[in-house]
Amino acid sequence: MSVSALPIVKDLKREESLARQYKAVRAHTESLCETLETEDYVVSSMPDVSPTKWHLAHTSWFFETFVLTERDSSYVPLNDRYAFLFNSYYVQAGERHCRAQRGLVTRPTVEEVYEYRRYVDQHMLALLEKVGHDPVITLGLHHEQQHQELLLTDIKHVMWTNPLRPAFDARRVESASRRLDDEWSEVPEGIHRIGFDGDGFAFDNERPPHRVFVDRFRIANHLVTNRQYLNFVEDGGYRKPELWLAAGWAIVKDEQRRAPIYWEKNESRWEEFTFAGMSELDPDIPVRHVSYFEADAYARWAGHRLPTEPEWEIAARTFPEIPDLYGSRWQWTQSAYVAYPGYSPPSGAIGEYNGKWMSDQWVLRGSSVATPPGHARVTYRNFFPSDTRWQFTGIRLASQ
Amino acid sequence: MSVSALPIVKDLKREESLARQYKAVRAHTESLCETLETEDYVVSSMPDVSPTKWHLAHTSWFFETFVLTERDSSYVPLNDRYAFLFNSYYVQAGERHCRAQRGLVTRPTVEEVYEYRRYVDQHMLALLEKVGHDPVITLGLHHEQQHQELLLTDIKHVMWTNPLRPAFDARRVESASRRLDDEWSEVPEGIHRIGFDGDGFAFDNERPPHRVFVDRFRIANHLVTNRQYLNFVEDGGYRKPELWLAAGWAIVKDEQRRAPIYWEKNESRWEEFTFAGMSELDPDIPVRHVSYFEADAYARWAGHRLPTEPEWEIAARTFPEIPDLYGSRWQWTQSAYVAYPGYSPPSGAIGEYNGKWMSDQWVLRGSSVATPPGHARVTYRNFFPSDTRWQFTGIRLASQ
Amino acid sequence: MSVSALPIVKDLKREESLARQYKAVRAHTESLCETLETEDYVVSSMPDVSPTKWHLAHTSWFFETFVLTERDSSYVPLNDRYAFLFNSYYVQAGERHCRAQRGLVTRPTVEEVYEYRRYVDQHMLALLEKVGHDPVITLGLHHEQQHQELLLTDIKHVMWTNPLRPAFDARRVESASRRLDDEWSEVPEGIHRIGFDGDGFAFDNERPPHRVFVDRFRIANHLVTNRQYLNFVEDGGYRKPELWLAAGWAIVKDEQRRAPIYWEKNESRWEEFTFAGMSELDPDIPVRHVSYFEADAYARWAGHRLPTEPEWEIAARTFPEIPDLYGSRWQWTQSAYVAYPGYSPPSGAIGEYNGKWMSDQWVLRGSSVATPPGHARVTYRNFFPSDTRWQFTGIRLASQ
Amino acid sequence: MSVSALPIVKDLKREESLARQYKAVRAHTESLCETLETEDYVVSSMPDVSPTKWHLAHTSWFFETFVLTERDSSYVPLNDRYAFLFNSYYVQAGERHCRAQRGLVTRPTVEEVYEYRRYVDQHMLALLEKVGHDPVITLGLHHEQQHQELLLTDIKHVMWTNPLRPAFDARRVESASRRLDDEWSEVPEGIHRIGFDGDGFAFDNERPPHRVFVDRFRIANHLVTNRQYLNFVEDGGYRKPELWLAAGWAIVKDEQRRAPIYWEKNESRWEEFTFAGMSELDPDIPVRHVSYFEADAYARWAGHRLPTEPEWEIAARTFPEIPDLYGSRWQWTQSAYVAYPGYSPPSGAIGEYNGKWMSDQWVLRGSSVATPPGHARVTYRNFFPSDTRWQFTGIRLASQ
Repeated sequence: MSVSALPIVKDLKREESLARQYKAVRAHTESLCETLETEDYVVSSMPDVSPTKWHLAHTSWFFETFVLTERDSSYVPLNDRYAFLFNSYYVQAGERHCRAQRGLVTRPTVEEVYEYRRYVDQHMLALLEKVGHDPVITLGLHHEQQHQELLLTDIKHVMWTNPLRPAFDARRVESASRRLDDEWSEVPEGIHRIGFDGDGFAFDNERPPHRVFVDRFRIANHLVTNRQYLNFVEDGGYRKPELWLAAGWAIVKDEQRRAPIYWEKNESRWEEFTFAGMSELDPDIPVRHVSYFEADAYARWAGHRLPTEPEWEIAARTFPEIPDLYGSRWQWTQSAYVAYPGYSPPSGAIGEYNGKWMSDQWVLRGSSVATPPGHARVTYRNFFPSDTRWQFTGIRLASQ
Repeated sequence: MSVSALPIVKDLKREESLARQYKAVRAHTESLCETLETEDYVVSSMPDVSPTKWHLAHTSWFFETFVLTERDSSYVPLNDRYAFLFNSYYVQAGERHCRAQRGLVTRPTVEEVYEYRRYVDQHMLALLEKVGHDPVITLGLHHEQQHQELLLTDIKHVMWTNPLRPAFDARRVESASRRLDDEWSEVPEGIHRIGFDGDGFAFDNERPPHRVFVDRFRIANHLVTNRQYLNFVEDGGYRKPELWLAAGWAIVKDEQRRAPIYWEKNESRWEEFTFAGMSELDPDIPVRHVSYFEADAYARWAGHRLPTEPEWEIAARTFPEIPDLYGSRWQWTQSAYVAYPGYSPPSGAIGEYNGKWMSDQWVLRGSSVATPPGHARVTYRNFFPSDTRWQFTGIRLASQ
Repeated sequence: MSVSALPIVKDLKREESLARQYKAVRAHTESLCETLETEDYVVSSMPDVSPTKWHLAHTSWFFETFVLTERDSSYVPLNDRYAFLFNSYYVQAGERHCRAQRGLVTRPTVEEVYEYRRYVDQHMLALLEKVGHDPVITLGLHHEQQHQELLLTDIKHVMWTNPLRPAFDARRVESASRRLDDEWSEVPEGIHRIGFDGDGFAFDNERPPHRVFVDRFRIANHLVTNRQYLNFVEDGGYRKPELWLAAGWAIVKDEQRRAPIYWEKNESRWEEFTFAGMSELDPDIPVRHVSYFEADAYARWAGHRLPTEPEWEIAARTFPEIPDLYGSRWQWTQSAYVAYPGYSPPSGAIGEYNGKWMSDQWVLRGSSVATPPGHARVTYRNFFPSDTRWQFTGIRLASQ
Repeated sequence: MSVSALPIVKDLKREESLARQYKAVRAHTESLCETLETEDYVVSSMPDVSPTKWHLAHTSWFFETFVLTERDSSYVPLNDRYAFLFNSYYVQAGERHCRAQRGLVTRPTVEEVYEYRRYVDQHMLALLEKVGHDPVITLGLHHEQQHQELLLTDIKHVMWTNPLRPAFDARRVESASRRLDDEWSEVPEGIHRIGFDGDGFAFDNERPPHRVFVDRFRIANHLVTNRQYLNFVEDGGYRKPELWLAAGWAIVKDEQRRAPIYWEKNESRWEEFTFAGMSELDPDIPVRHVSYFEADAYARWAGHRLPTEPEWEIAARTFPEIPDLYGSRWQWTQSAYVAYPGYSPPSGAIGEYNGKWMSDQWVLRGSSVATPPGHARVTYRNFFPSDTRWQFTGIRLASQ
């Protein structure tokens, strides 16, 4: 299973040297942009979406700010203003450009941003010759991998915003699986340990490991497919308030929603916008780009529910062979994104990475076709607000 | 502990007949309005606030819609349009008036709303002569008690919105406690059972009872006082982004917040808006009207954290003598408001009562000075969004 | 022609003493409120609408601020905060309450506002015993007359906002005329003098008198009727972009407008909201409550145009017997509201009365059924923005 | 007087063949883009601003839609969807892309847009071989010239929006004049004829010619300079409500404005953003980028007023040697943009060009440094709303 059919994709393997890892991750980011025109790099199609150009620069800024400036006293930034332009949200790292204006800035050009990457790479590689292990550099690599996924979901939204519905990259596969296992896996009640407890990399929010009690539960072996979701749509799922959370129903009504964001009914045929442009809806692949509200409504319609975060992790540890745990769709849980017992973020600006987002978001587990290989793990906690639709989000059901 | 110094307040006791309970609750609602002028009943000072008049009518509509219309085939509504005007959010109970316009409707007049109450009461009391026990009527009484609290918090906000800062009711006490117990109670790790398991009344969201595992924790015996919160304010608490969740900090900056909603610094003196108008800040009573964002930031500043919902309930069951569990301030927990394992709402419109709100809210536990006596219990789950400030919300800290 | 069928209405005659005029105007304002319930005085149904209570207070504040405080050194305001609450927009008269919050202020009560009127009246009448003539007092009376009209149009909108569509005052007539004179009056080209040049009262914006050249033109002797406007509606007037100004068409589309604000089609019958509640559309009376955009679109559809401001005044001076010049509907002109050549406002806060509104408004001429008798004159310049609909505005056509 | 120092700029001369005129205008548009990077063509920095790419395409769409499709039955559009993407506001020409999204569309690329221009040019030049004179083609050329000016003002705003404040084109001169003639020209009272009456090209809104009466007036020979406007700023002009129209003052307060849009005070030095980037404020050139509100407030502060539209035209006809009538700054008049007596727009979509904008805008006269040479004339009516600041607008005073 891979993010794309392109040969360039490399895994981020722990046994490799940090320098090799660095080169692989940086190269992978740029490989994602192969099919882009210069114009495509510039715009932001909604507040959640950042320009490709910005992703390329911000991931470099991260190394510049948290590594080069800290570790290398002789380092001189390529451009003093980039610290302002490419800081995303680290308040303790200084003033920053308004997020809403990211898509209005035409300079530095794409070429200049690539020069910025070259400049940071050159200094990083020099530093890496002297450094064997560095947790902030490793964090920077995982950070860049997260932006690789965002880059893909953002550019998909940019392309879709265009009435011409251009293809981003026709070679890029969005659906890893057609496995249709209708079985459920059952986990008996008991105390389980969840959270990260190994010695490799994990984000702060995956720690500390801790015990939870769960009742007996069942979890679906397969993700909900387009065909199943279409049944919900055609059964009037978007017209029945009793299926929806109040906040979700308000949006469905206000915006007259009738289907997932990228679906379109042309005459009697359902189509879906993909990396390859509009194409006929494939009924046998897992549904994608559904919000928490949609996932929750579907589960209610189907007579089941979404799993909690501990349930998902316990099932994934217990039955690692369950299909599509990773690499297909992020799976909504019905657990809000809050701190684990005993959690505390690192001090300083880097502590803003995960901790300050712990309100009004849901945890998603697993990973998606857009996640770089090797990035996710069984304890990984992704999180998005209830109405998020532009990510590769899907539905795995649970039940008592 | 009592909501007010007024003699009329009556408890809702289970041993009393349903008819006596009905009369007591209905009378208590009206007693809360004793000091209001007609004009005060009409307006809504922000989207969260409903006019007093609307509370009086909506609680009657509840009995009309879910009891009289269902149980009494001969019942004729006093006014056909009231079903439209006074339905709050029950989509399955028919079309309803836009919430945003509640404060623009001058008719029916206050007098006519009281006539509506009389009319419903007369039919309800006739029905109650024939009915010994009815879960929907009991639900209606608890529903009306919830609106008693909202009526008080709403009218406080209405009065505060007025630049004249008029008193609502100078006799009404807002602070039950001056107990300053600086001790903490410690609970050892283990599996505990939480949720409602008795045979009296509880809301659907308090069920089913279920087991949770918690690590050892400590919970504060006292609520955070105005004096303590003022230390946070004067230490620059509202100017330090590192103390705040990102969404909270964005609001603090945008609105240039510097203190809780009802605090005002006049020259060098801190004052607070109360039911009796502006008065000097009393340092020894528990802080009130703080949002989740403020409670969370305070806890971080103080080097502690908020309790989780299970922790609060386990502590309250284990140490029922902890001061101010009830009747003083609702206590924010760091648990999002989601369904208990195995929860399912009742069918029909009544099922919209609690279940459809399970996104983007936090659980608060205990009860406040504005909660009618006898209303709350150890399993009671109140819930509000992160930036809610107009409720009597306070802070109880927890720690490992 | 009269504003209402009520006997109490009095004309404001120049030959009467200022004290008699004062009493008549002040009494007339209060007579308009005879049928109101207390609740009706409190709310504002849209930003343009002020609460009745506010009109009663603000007109008193005007006398307090610009007369009593200026002329009577011993005058002590009844309440110091009223100067803040009841200043409308006079920046030079000090800080003022936010207009958007006028409808949220329940105190002072209606009764207290009437006491405020009594208090100001008592001091004004004492002053008037010593004063024979005072331009600011006369201005205050004309100011109060303007608020009499606003009070009526505002309360009509408040009542309409209520889904119950209550009647304001069933005795109050909104349609002065059923004269259906299809003739046109023709005025030859030439230089004419317009603007106020008498020795009675006129607002500053009616001055100075000055010369204009107009080409030959014709002006309709009758106002456009409901029947005529209905023909436009039923001919698809609201679906043909070519009839509309761009800004008007944008609103028609966004809000899916299909008819004037107070019209409703119930089954196949057109009804109109009036002071007496909903009633069948009377085809023979002049259309009312149309915006400039609607008036302009209608004129284009009819193959004519709106008159300019000078044309209207010249026609009204030349043919004073043209029906419905006054007392029926304000008549939109295609002249923007700008200063007359040589205009300069008085100095001080009173200079803010008319001058600072001279942008993005159109001049209306004549007067309406809601205008107090004796208030208007041939040089009177009323003005409102393009989408204004809640005034008694109608259409008089012109043509080359 | 020239738009730029670049040698390529050509005048649009009536004596030239239409084909030569066409080539000159089309080439001039492209010459304006010489210094742009691909990225610069894509974005829209505020709703008023269109992307450069869109200007290039829309002006071609105009010829395609109103000329090629009408005149050449064999014409096949290069891309069917361009009619949707590049229609600005011609409702009668079919559905069109939402203006707010113009800056989000990355495809067609800049290169493809230039191909579109080539394609349209090729067909137009073929057609022009057969056509001697065509009023719609001439209109299309004047239309494209208007977009040449907008292209410049839009790209200036785009560059300014970027915190790096990049230069658009350092060779481009924004200030034609340093003539400081403090004299006034006086025009006696009388009837004058204004409006277009020649046999060359003029827009429909310049017609019909008609007579107006004006009182004696004086008009300033010079435009207000930066130095003079700075005196107003430093005299507290932006802090004195009595100088401002109400709507203008509301904006000044809400947005805390202190100076024209492109001015910045860095330490004690005033700088201004120009085509060449930030540069020191030149005190001796005419102030630019002031809104109507600012022009009107300045005039009041200076003890004068703005000219009316007839006054400007009469003065310009009477004293054609008054400096800076053209080619420096558009000059605000205190006349609203309304139809001339007897005006009627052409039928069909082309009639939407000018007529439907006749509400809530002011007339500006003359032309600016960004106006292509030969485009303007003494009867030319430019128009913008009161708060427009991104155009090259300046102030010429008038007086009685």
